Amino acid sequence: MFDDADARWMRAALTLARRGLGRVAPNPAVGCVIVKDGVVLGRGWTQPGGRPHAETMALAQAGEAARGAAAYVTLEPCAHHGRTPPCADALIAAGIARVVAAAGDPDPRVDGRGLSRLRAAGIAVATGLLEAEAREINAGFLTRHALGRPWLTLKLAGSIDGRIATASGDSRWITGPAARARVHLIRAEADAILVGMGTLRADDPRLDVRLAGLEDRSPLPVLLDPRLSTPPSARLLSTGRPTLILHAPGVDAPRAKTLRGLGAELVEVAAAPGGLSPEACLAALGARGLTRAFCEGGGRLAAALIEADLVDEIAWFTGGAAIGSEGMPALGPLGLSRLAEARRYRCVQSARLGPDAFSLWRRADPTPAA
Amino acid sequence: MFDDADARWMRAALTLARRGLGRVAPNPAVGCVIVKDGVVLGRGWTQPGGRPHAETMALAQAGEAARGAAAYVTLEPCAHHGRTPPCADALIAAGIARVVAAAGDPDPRVDGRGLSRLRAAGIAVATGLLEAEAREINAGFLTRHALGRPWLTLKLAGSIDGRIATASGDSRWITGPAARARVHLIRAEADAILVGMGTLRADDPRLDVRLAGLEDRSPLPVLLDPRLSTPPSARLLSTGRPTLILHAPGVDAPRAKTLRGLGAELVEVAAAPGGLSPEACLAALGARGLTRAFCEGGGRLAAALIEADLVDEIAWFTGGAAIGSEGMPALGPLGLSRLAEARRYRCVQSARLGPDAFSLWRRADPTPAA
Repeated sequence: MFDDADARWMRAALTLARRGLGRVAPNPAVGCVIVKDGVVLGRGWTQPGGRPHAETMALAQAGEAARGAAAYVTLEPCAHHGRTPPCADALIAAGIARVVAAAGDPDPRVDGRGLSRLRAAGIAVATGLLEAEAREINAGFLTRHALGRPWLTLKLAGSIDGRIATASGDSRWITGPAARARVHLIRAEADAILVGMGTLRADDPRLDVRLAGLEDRSPLPVLLDPRLSTPPSARLLSTGRPTLILHAPGVDAPRAKTLRGLGAELVEVAAAPGGLSPEACLAALGARGLTRAFCEGGGRLAAALIEADLVDEIAWFTGGAAIGSEGMPALGPLGLSRLAEARRYRCVQSARLGPDAFSLWRRADPTPAA
Repeated sequence: MFDDADARWMRAALTLARRGLGRVAPNPAVGCVIVKDGVVLGRGWTQPGGRPHAETMALAQAGEAARGAAAYVTLEPCAHHGRTPPCADALIAAGIARVVAAAGDPDPRVDGRGLSRLRAAGIAVATGLLEAEAREINAGFLTRHALGRPWLTLKLAGSIDGRIATASGDSRWITGPAARARVHLIRAEADAILVGMGTLRADDPRLDVRLAGLEDRSPLPVLLDPRLSTPPSARLLSTGRPTLILHAPGVDAPRAKTLRGLGAELVEVAAAPGGLSPEACLAALGARGLTRAFCEGGGRLAAALIEADLVDEIAWFTGGAAIGSEGMPALGPLGLSRLAEARRYRCVQSARLGPDAFSLWRRADPTPAA
């Protein structure tokens, strides 16, 4: 059904699709390549904010030449009238002869209708090429559709023995510039960054992307602040970027007013012993249309998210210092007695980053979405 | 000075050299390839026990055809009469026209004399090709020569958050079969395996190599047992393999007699607060001619070795379970207050092993030997 050239063009479309990550929520990040006689006529990807769609962009580039061409799309073309006419109709109108789609779109307004519309117009349609890769790129979109929450990547960073600081709190230089750059790249592909109050107090972070050329890719900062104790002097609030603060019911009204005055948006979520309900926090982000969340700490929040089984992926950054067991652990208490109860992840990637190590882990038992 | 073909043959010689690791101490593991007109005439490597040498084996294979050929050796050929005549003389006698050596031999009986002997006989000699690779293979031999102790690889294994067990001691299935196989491969290339009494009591390990085809490669087990409390029922003592027990001065004589009766060899080393002097232990191994030691735990011994700055390499095996901060740490206390005091390692290798991750770390500031 598919030959080597098909796989090559779809790989190109997948590479284009990645460009949308972190900037198209709640839409999926889609890529499209239009090809005739081995020549690329158009390349498109979902544009920031979600519109135009990848197909629209690629068709516009190809123009009249698209007649009789093949279109490679990483997700089934949409079939519903939204802010723009459906992409399936645009492909038909342009005279596309063959459409190869990597994955189906679970959106109930699409869900097979895009492909059947194309088939009904006499277009040769094939699906499932590099589907796993396409689903991985759209893990956020798919997770939100299936579970109502964003795909969650948890960052853990520590010494060679899993510590983030000495007993006295000294935590400088755990990992180096190559690891930090990778963290910023993950930020750039996220819709939101989550931190707890411990991290806010300890680091007063900016949570932005400081990589040359990607400065405009900073995701929405989300503070998990049960009692609304974010200090008005927090650096985040002076960046001019919108900030989301999730808090428990019954917080101090003047404090809320102050923070709103500083540009923060406040959302009340259910409380849970020790803080906010992790499920309620992620559901609130899903309800806002966020599809990819990146949690950067601290150890207690990380443990709460793991305990609630909300962590889809762990990005581990390991520096080469040996701190010893008196040091502060990267991951907080989980209350396990037997190992059989432990959440399990499998390593899907492993790399050196300068003198440091990076490993990427996914949940061993995938959710229905992944 | 060197062309692509030189590098190819030297790489072949390095691969042969590796075969000797763990079975040739106190000798270096050397490889030799004899080549004429692009044809390999002989391949040799240091044989178990250290004799015959790589050159002897390769020359025997090549026979008369060696006349006019080139010899690629991973270490400078020896120049001294030991149990056998010097390899430099054998290369000369065989009519070898060119010798390419990767690294020099620091043994005071050789140390340049092998190469000058060859040159004096009119042989073209070149050195330094793939020297770093050759020095890495002979890190054990070189470390023992420079520092009087074996090269030390420390194994650490733990959960994704650096724990070896839950608070209750449950430690089953931290890593899987691929990781275990890699551990056994490291054992096969070691001269000795070290464990402390905590590990002996908890695991009653056999410390052998259980990989098909490598069953005869089990290294010498070394117990660090300050008070000679190894139970006579320990599994190690029933394997029929020699076992070395390092203990502090002033131990119980009848107990010593019992353990000796079970085939253990007892060596007294200096005590230190909390157990044995790590330096004295490694010096004792060096004095016995051991060049490559692999420490498999536990966490306190690992910490003592790191604190004494005796760890040349850390082999980290990470499984995918999240255990949490109540779990038992893979690495014990190091007594650091400032991060600047921490021992530092740099990641030199990173890989997936099935669902687990493996990373290899070397000391950030190499010793004079490495």
